[in-house]
Amino acid sequence: MLDKQSGDEQIFLKNCWYVAAWDHELLDGKKLERTILEKSLVLFRGESGAYVALNNRCPHRGAPLSMGRIEGDCIRCMYHGMKFDALGNCIQIPGQERIPGSMTVHSYPVEERNHLVWIWMGDPALADPDLIVDYAPLGEPEWRGLPGYLHYKASWLLIVDNLSDFTHLAFVHTNTLGGSEEYAYEAKPSVIERLDNGFRVERWHRNSDAPPYHRRVIPDKDAKVDRRNIANMVIPGMFFMETMFAPAGSNDDSLESTRQYRNCQYMTPETRNTTHFFWNYLHNSNIDDPNIAISLRDSLFEGFYEDKDIIEAQQVLLDTDSEFRLRTLEADVGLTHFRQTLRRKIQEENAASPATVY
Amino acid sequence: MLDKQSGDEQIFLKNCWYVAAWDHELLDGKKLERTILEKSLVLFRGESGAYVALNNRCPHRGAPLSMGRIEGDCIRCMYHGMKFDALGNCIQIPGQERIPGSMTVHSYPVEERNHLVWIWMGDPALADPDLIVDYAPLGEPEWRGLPGYLHYKASWLLIVDNLSDFTHLAFVHTNTLGGSEEYAYEAKPSVIERLDNGFRVERWHRNSDAPPYHRRVIPDKDAKVDRRNIANMVIPGMFFMETMFAPAGSNDDSLESTRQYRNCQYMTPETRNTTHFFWNYLHNSNIDDPNIAISLRDSLFEGFYEDKDIIEAQQVLLDTDSEFRLRTLEADVGLTHFRQTLRRKIQEENAASPATVY
Amino acid sequence: MLDKQSGDEQIFLKNCWYVAAWDHELLDGKKLERTILEKSLVLFRGESGAYVALNNRCPHRGAPLSMGRIEGDCIRCMYHGMKFDALGNCIQIPGQERIPGSMTVHSYPVEERNHLVWIWMGDPALADPDLIVDYAPLGEPEWRGLPGYLHYKASWLLIVDNLSDFTHLAFVHTNTLGGSEEYAYEAKPSVIERLDNGFRVERWHRNSDAPPYHRRVIPDKDAKVDRRNIANMVIPGMFFMETMFAPAGSNDDSLESTRQYRNCQYMTPETRNTTHFFWNYLHNSNIDDPNIAISLRDSLFEGFYEDKDIIEAQQVLLDTDSEFRLRTLEADVGLTHFRQTLRRKIQEENAASPATVY
Repeated sequence: MLDKQSGDEQIFLKNCWYVAAWDHELLDGKKLERTILEKSLVLFRGESGAYVALNNRCPHRGAPLSMGRIEGDCIRCMYHGMKFDALGNCIQIPGQERIPGSMTVHSYPVEERNHLVWIWMGDPALADPDLIVDYAPLGEPEWRGLPGYLHYKASWLLIVDNLSDFTHLAFVHTNTLGGSEEYAYEAKPSVIERLDNGFRVERWHRNSDAPPYHRRVIPDKDAKVDRRNIANMVIPGMFFMETMFAPAGSNDDSLESTRQYRNCQYMTPETRNTTHFFWNYLHNSNIDDPNIAISLRDSLFEGFYEDKDIIEAQQVLLDTDSEFRLRTLEADVGLTHFRQTLRRKIQEENAASPATVY
Repeated sequence: MLDKQSGDEQIFLKNCWYVAAWDHELLDGKKLERTILEKSLVLFRGESGAYVALNNRCPHRGAPLSMGRIEGDCIRCMYHGMKFDALGNCIQIPGQERIPGSMTVHSYPVEERNHLVWIWMGDPALADPDLIVDYAPLGEPEWRGLPGYLHYKASWLLIVDNLSDFTHLAFVHTNTLGGSEEYAYEAKPSVIERLDNGFRVERWHRNSDAPPYHRRVIPDKDAKVDRRNIANMVIPGMFFMETMFAPAGSNDDSLESTRQYRNCQYMTPETRNTTHFFWNYLHNSNIDDPNIAISLRDSLFEGFYEDKDIIEAQQVLLDTDSEFRLRTLEADVGLTHFRQTLRRKIQEENAASPATVY
Repeated sequence: MLDKQSGDEQIFLKNCWYVAAWDHELLDGKKLERTILEKSLVLFRGESGAYVALNNRCPHRGAPLSMGRIEGDCIRCMYHGMKFDALGNCIQIPGQERIPGSMTVHSYPVEERNHLVWIWMGDPALADPDLIVDYAPLGEPEWRGLPGYLHYKASWLLIVDNLSDFTHLAFVHTNTLGGSEEYAYEAKPSVIERLDNGFRVERWHRNSDAPPYHRRVIPDKDAKVDRRNIANMVIPGMFFMETMFAPAGSNDDSLESTRQYRNCQYMTPETRNTTHFFWNYLHNSNIDDPNIAISLRDSLFEGFYEDKDIIEAQQVLLDTDSEFRLRTLEADVGLTHFRQTLRRKIQEENAASPATVY
């Protein structure tokens, strides 16, 4: 779509781990119907605690397993009662002795790390859990935060674009996450580093007012600050950012008197034009005050809705004209590298196993 | 679609009678706009009492005749006033003397039988009223029931599938029409009989609790029963079932002390993926108590909404993957025979008159 | 669509002026997102008073300029802050010195005449303001009226059809704009005159009751009237009508004792199947009584909603069957000439510059 790929061409990278859910979405025996890479899946946690992800479609007549019943680590289709184990094998057909070999449903590798449920949509034989891009602060006791989820009616690549250029903080988020329009003019990325699996960007903004979301949770609201963002964008669509606010003019590298945030964002394609967006914005000051995490979560939601408005409008406009080509500015070197690298990896994957469908 | 038919291939059997409406839908001069086999029609009862079905599209500029005015057995388009008789001939053009021969609208044969309005969508010359599959209990004074209608966002073939396998009573309708899950395991069809125009199935379930819908309308609610269902599925999509509840262990063939139901269901394709569903569930006990028919109608609606939930979800899943092929269990011998027979009849019909469009 | 044009074929006449908006829609710095001829545009009035129309899509990443900020006669995209002048040239990129030549957005010629904002969607070099089909009564102090707007889910050609045959007044508008069904039978167009840019029609209806909309605003409600309509339909879709009510039997050509109306209607294609409909219905009696204009506006809205109901239903029916061909009556000589002339002009335009896209 965005790259004029035809329907037949491979759009998604498959042999990699995607975030499928927060673990709280599968609490208490909940069955989650979720489409990922244009496949409808059922996700659940079996009674042993194991996470299970199956193609949502019963192989018999295509009824959704997400309307089924969890029994142990198995799920029973509640149309005609066929029962499938965690590997997708049919183990019971009411009223029929013989179970045909074709009566299986695809089972996807799933792993949980630090409250995130990861799924591997490609060749299960390649699903090495060590490839999961774990984000340590999510599990470290000194960091606090509340998990968030948003659904986007837009391609995950447009959200990657959005996160790749901090200039948008100045215009989209002036009164929420940004703070001032001057940010766009005065601050420059110190570094944009091209990596094999994405890029890294570092950007300073010195001697400015604290942006509104930060101002809400600090005592000295009017003091000028130096702000440093260091971000990593990782293929297929993961964003990790360290944010530091130091007193204006202090030594940059000292962490004394600074306030720190850790932020992870995951863009998992639902379809080529819709996205599951998972995130957490973590802080490490006054962690016994639960209202700080709540304030930050609400501020971030406020900001992300500003993004969502413009990104979904962007998608609508792009959909109306297949001739239009996105253009790049100097600041877009990161996202351009990201798109090129992703496209190359998809082509390599496709060349290696063109015919396999999971 | 379900059978990977292309848009050009014929999907529907045309030279047969379909249920178009209950007669009460056309009371008091109502004009009914209804799409059948992907044709938009206007149905009405003329002032003589005759039923009329015309292509809904005025031949002049395509305005809907269903927005017109009934005059006698004619209908006048209320855009520019052209008047059409029951055969679809234009008989008046305001402001113009000459009526061109091309100003006709297709008229479909219609017949009423026992409160059902039947329509013939194929070659009118073949529309023999004796081919109507009349259901006698609808007109017999010892049977009582209330007519029902539901609209399905699903192919009529998925509803045929549903009705073809009683196992689903156990899982979909456990607490409404079914009664227990054991039904799926213990009961077997005594017979599945392949017929030239569909199939017949008979299934016993012995020594079980009365299912909830039946329990509501009988005095001795806790007595065990033997349940017998005898069903006929008839092409293009009609279902007739006799249900008998006998005291558990009594002589099967005696009708003494039994309770009987008669049930007809009609699946008329609106489009290839949406369906008009007509039904009546008749009883013959205490027929002077109107609440029994009301209770049964409400119970059946409750059950049919359970079906509708799963069947429409099934359709959504099938629509997302044109590669998926439905698979069959042993219990599906009836529906497989039905689909094969229907497909053969459509091919024969198409071979006989490939170019005719009505 | 209506004429079986493929998606590639040119559907719209481009080298002509279309009504884009009433001027009141751009008051007070409003940014109007409006799609015209299937192009999403942003329309606004700059601080100098100049009207500006730009392609709505920022050339950088496709964000909508209609979500931007007016600065002077420029607009700033509020995604990454790029600023465009009234000619569509990028004049600022925050954080970047060099402005690439490709960073432009198409600017459309715009002109205001008598409260209507006109746009030229074709070759800007040909946009001669003298070609605007100005309607003088909109600016003359003796005429009063209130501007109206409706959105149609139908092709503009179906609205042209509607206005081309006064017979529909009898059936669609019997109780609003028409007055009686006899109008369709007794009145004939005196003249249908084929013009190079459309057609002219004149129609008398003698000795009839005043139609309801007129009756509401005159003192002698029961006097019989002679009604004369003289209408011009102008390519690409503009309708101008003089309506005169004279006392029944008076000398036709005398304007003594008559009541007069002036009426303009503009059908601007939003897409091939949806339309912006602008209109004003002007009167010149008792112009100091504001309630007359309000009564007429409300009566006309009432009538236009009657049209909208049937025309949108017509579009739905036409969309369901691409095989259907509209047929014509004798009264359709005007609209047939209009469609043929429009098609010829489109072909000529296409032949002259087949490859140009604006």
